[in-house]
Amino acid sequence: MAHVRTYSSRPVLTVNLTALADNYKYFAAKAGGARIGASVKADAYGLGAGIVGRALYGAGCRIFFVAHAGEGKILRNSIGAKASIYVLSGNTPQDTAIFFGSKLKPVINSLTQARDWVKAIKAVNHAPRTALHFDTGINRLGIPAEEAEVFADDKELIAALDVDLVMSHLACSGDAEHALNESQLGRFKRISARMPMVPLSLANTGGIYLGAKYHFKLVRPGMGLYGGKVTTQSDKEGVKPVVELHAPVLQIKTVKAGETIGYDGSFTARTDMKIAIVSAGYADGLPVNLSGSDKRIVTSARLGKHRVPVVGRVSMDYTILDITNYDGFVELGAKAVFFGENLEEQAAHARTINYEVMTHLGARCRKIYVNE
Amino acid sequence: MAHVRTYSSRPVLTVNLTALADNYKYFAAKAGGARIGASVKADAYGLGAGIVGRALYGAGCRIFFVAHAGEGKILRNSIGAKASIYVLSGNTPQDTAIFFGSKLKPVINSLTQARDWVKAIKAVNHAPRTALHFDTGINRLGIPAEEAEVFADDKELIAALDVDLVMSHLACSGDAEHALNESQLGRFKRISARMPMVPLSLANTGGIYLGAKYHFKLVRPGMGLYGGKVTTQSDKEGVKPVVELHAPVLQIKTVKAGETIGYDGSFTARTDMKIAIVSAGYADGLPVNLSGSDKRIVTSARLGKHRVPVVGRVSMDYTILDITNYDGFVELGAKAVFFGENLEEQAAHARTINYEVMTHLGARCRKIYVNE
Repeated sequence: MAHVRTYSSRPVLTVNLTALADNYKYFAAKAGGARIGASVKADAYGLGAGIVGRALYGAGCRIFFVAHAGEGKILRNSIGAKASIYVLSGNTPQDTAIFFGSKLKPVINSLTQARDWVKAIKAVNHAPRTALHFDTGINRLGIPAEEAEVFADDKELIAALDVDLVMSHLACSGDAEHALNESQLGRFKRISARMPMVPLSLANTGGIYLGAKYHFKLVRPGMGLYGGKVTTQSDKEGVKPVVELHAPVLQIKTVKAGETIGYDGSFTARTDMKIAIVSAGYADGLPVNLSGSDKRIVTSARLGKHRVPVVGRVSMDYTILDITNYDGFVELGAKAVFFGENLEEQAAHARTINYEVMTHLGARCRKIYVNE
Repeated sequence: MAHVRTYSSRPVLTVNLTALADNYKYFAAKAGGARIGASVKADAYGLGAGIVGRALYGAGCRIFFVAHAGEGKILRNSIGAKASIYVLSGNTPQDTAIFFGSKLKPVINSLTQARDWVKAIKAVNHAPRTALHFDTGINRLGIPAEEAEVFADDKELIAALDVDLVMSHLACSGDAEHALNESQLGRFKRISARMPMVPLSLANTGGIYLGAKYHFKLVRPGMGLYGGKVTTQSDKEGVKPVVELHAPVLQIKTVKAGETIGYDGSFTARTDMKIAIVSAGYADGLPVNLSGSDKRIVTSARLGKHRVPVVGRVSMDYTILDITNYDGFVELGAKAVFFGENLEEQAAHARTINYEVMTHLGARCRKIYVNE
């Protein structure tokens, strides 16, 4: 087999920073006067928080959200001292030094976190400011209704916390018709009215699509920035795909009719076939549920200008493509492409959600950041 | 809420190195006189190839398999110069320098790789030796039957490759009754008889369980070393669990009957409930398909001495546990435990395989290596 270019067996994740910046501008425009606080938790959904954060900073973003203090530290080292970095999990006892050292703002989710923080900052000058996060109906992390009363009444606590943002999180923003949206909006307005006069924030990506009354002073897109669709009306979402998984062709071979392909012999060649073995598997985030068996062919990859089916079990490191009917010559080192504009469809075929697929893509791939 | 110990919001993956070493000894005993070549590809299935590799080296392992040259380089830096490291994807043009620099042995999967390698080593002294990998029926990566003839006839090529291992890979070793096992064994014997007199290797973890005639001189366990079950008769597999995911409790709250919990409102409280929000989600490898909805509660976590159900959608960073009927006091910072001896069951509940779950566990968790 000829191969005309150099290539590595390691798969590549391409992250299109131009599309990322375009998506940032798209949400900035959609949110009107509201500012953007980018969610870059979980290593920017697997895409690399350092470089993604810097690209968003370059596009104008000055407010970021991460899940853990350790993530905040990495981001701080990448984007410099000027931006606000909020830690969504809030302060936990072991991480206090990281909050102070990297100037991270805790998102206060409970009275315990509030009191721990107030106690901790007595030891330092210029402690970071904080956000208050009220649970308005998601029943996940966040200050519950009964504790909200305490916050509303305890002026001394509020003053000590030096709050600069009051926020909540929507549970069902992907479905514009869901009754919980209005209910959460109402609860958020009622509780925030009893808090200090600081910027308010309610909307994640889905919340931005819900319209102006959900935007307040700050919106917090995550998945949308990375090109993911999040609503039941995804054709109305104007984001550009950011991520593709490129798996190099390592080998091309023929298979005789009647032979099986891959683990468990779950796919049987009905005719003589030509297959390409590409170098990416579930350790690279290609879900095992995209495997093609005798029962069903689930998905395909883009190879050159064509799409070719995935056959046999997706294994840890390799995936097999049926190129029997491929119209053209496939070189070794050519890249089979997964995801991109296909992300939602392929996630659905894998019986999961685009978010989960995306977070697993960066684990082993070499990341290549593209500026168009 | 009281919390009596210090803790971070970041989840922890515990890797039990004593159990790992015990599993190594278990397979060494099972394989009789055959040596063990440990599969530590994909960062040792997500557990950290550097430390896992060193622990296996400490247990006596001197032969390792990785998928890519870059993985081999990291492993070499961790375990030192004396062990053999084979790269299963074989040599690819861009990685040649890494093979030479880190003394990695390519697993030759095709005539193209063989000829590329022979060409490349002309430029160096003391080139690494190689393995030949024949495809005996998995129809994935490996030298196909027609190319095997060329290898058998071309003594000059074989001499130049300086082969020190001849191997193949089983497709259906998890099912002792599958006809492909015997078929692959026969093909492997026929082709290896025409190769140089070097050690032979056919068995992955499943192949070790198939019995002595599959063992040859070297067996290559992967999943089994990490405590994973791989066969249809898993009760006969004597491995010890190695991996647990520990998610700290960040908050405890009550939910009123009729309210929903988590994203999409997919779980509704039928009575007043008490829930614990724990800090681990699908970005930490907890599959979204373990979510508990009104339709079905899929799984539970271990909390202290009890098991408590997962309710609502597993989200990127957090998961919610129903502790309404928990008999005892739950502290903040207490750890909810997923996987361990439960790995296969929870993977099945998540509609995937234990291998895929394991490879995703190490992405964000802090890894703590335990010696019992």
